[in-house]
Amino acid sequence: MKVKLASSYGFCFGVKRAIKIAEGYEDSATMGPLIHNQNEIDRLKTDYNVGLYNNLTDVKPKDTIIIRTHGIPKNDLKDLRKKDAKVINATCPFVTTPQQIVKKMSQENYSILIFGDEAHPEVKGVKSYGEDQEDVHVILSISELDNINFKYDKIATVAQTTKKKETYLEIVNALILKNKEVRVFNTICDATFENQDAARELSKEVDVMVVIGGKNSSNTKQLHSICLENCQDSYLIENAKELDPNWFKNKNLCGITAGASTPDWIIQQVVDEIEKY
Amino acid sequence: MKVKLASSYGFCFGVKRAIKIAEGYEDSATMGPLIHNQNEIDRLKTDYNVGLYNNLTDVKPKDTIIIRTHGIPKNDLKDLRKKDAKVINATCPFVTTPQQIVKKMSQENYSILIFGDEAHPEVKGVKSYGEDQEDVHVILSISELDNINFKYDKIATVAQTTKKKETYLEIVNALILKNKEVRVFNTICDATFENQDAARELSKEVDVMVVIGGKNSSNTKQLHSICLENCQDSYLIENAKELDPNWFKNKNLCGITAGASTPDWIIQQVVDEIEKY
Repeated sequence: MKVKLASSYGFCFGVKRAIKIAEGYEDSATMGPLIHNQNEIDRLKTDYNVGLYNNLTDVKPKDTIIIRTHGIPKNDLKDLRKKDAKVINATCPFVTTPQQIVKKMSQENYSILIFGDEAHPEVKGVKSYGEDQEDVHVILSISELDNINFKYDKIATVAQTTKKKETYLEIVNALILKNKEVRVFNTICDATFENQDAARELSKEVDVMVVIGGKNSSNTKQLHSICLENCQDSYLIENAKELDPNWFKNKNLCGITAGASTPDWIIQQVVDEIEKY
Repeated sequence: MKVKLASSYGFCFGVKRAIKIAEGYEDSATMGPLIHNQNEIDRLKTDYNVGLYNNLTDVKPKDTIIIRTHGIPKNDLKDLRKKDAKVINATCPFVTTPQQIVKKMSQENYSILIFGDEAHPEVKGVKSYGEDQEDVHVILSISELDNINFKYDKIATVAQTTKKKETYLEIVNALILKNKEVRVFNTICDATFENQDAARELSKEVDVMVVIGGKNSSNTKQLHSICLENCQDSYLIENAKELDPNWFKNKNLCGITAGASTPDWIIQQVVDEIEKY
């Protein structure tokens, strides 16, 4: 089986930076999974003894705690800083930006709209920076707009860094038609765009498409959904073990892309395996 | 010939207000045409001796000068106030709003984009309020965006009150994809929307459509263009004298709409005439 990699794929700036930070603090622990990739988290544990805490109550005195790339809610950070622990912030700078925008805009009496997934840790963190939590609204699609009662007719809006720009624009357009002022912050990350555009192009020319990434990773799921638009035989896997030889029967060319949290060593294993078929 | 009026047409709030103001100042003069309708301007001259000045040099001591609904450039207003004349401001409040936005936003170091017609008096006035005239850009279509060098990556944008919202959104979307922050002020007037929506609906159900309004009126021209999309036999006239009986041959139902500067008495004359056919 011939394999072709997307022209852009895999680790983004924020993930590379967070891993480098974590590798610099042996015997530390991350607050929540550092990135959305279990294999890489396991590697950090094995190679650097970087552990994982899921609750503030896990923190012990003198611990070194690394804040995950997606950030954590404002009050959790505050509580963490009160403990007798060293806090290292590996929040992606592109996530810190919408956190600070939400803080500033709500202080200036704008109603806040976040385009994103309310359950995603990044969005939980960003939302927590609103001064008036009652007037910070999170939606995933334009249809949810009708149910929102904004406090003001001045709206500030940010997007989860990994969301589709087309859907963000749809939502923004609806806001503009109904409100006096809409302050639009384009917080969608360029890396996401680049990986998405490359996946779109590649999926048009191949017979089968393999998307490698965490199944709880927002940007990996988006890549998969984009590939499915052009190539019915698109599969999402976390690592080479999940490959099924049946996918490649009677196919000539296999395209490969990977989410922003997928390390190169996992991608290489997948490529090596597919090339054997 | 049967005639049907659009569910919304004619004079908007700002025009009604300006005429009322002008009627209250006999023997005054307007600075530029008060509204874009020659017939109504003639009526104000005949009934109230409200004259028309086109240049500041026309102003004589003790004159009462009425600022037109579209507003005038900031420096003209300043110069006018220095003269020994009484200044009455009939600028539509919906036009004063974008003037003040452009002033404030350029003071706060936003680059300014105005969606509108650079040659239109309203736009000339709004543009004049930018602190840095080099960084206030006026465009009529999305294709012109490529030629603009904004000074900042924070853009504030307003629209001429009578422009199409769909085109404004297209431009805004392109801005959002290329800039960190876009501050969108929806300054398109509701009255324009309402007349446009009603014209669109009516033009779908009639055999011939007559749009009444000034041929230099931006919103009247838009109404005409919207009607043409649904009804090939759509005609733009300023008054009943311009009607051509040939337009109504073998037609059953004639739709009527009118621009925001068209007085009811002109509309009534047109309706009366068409009903005779």
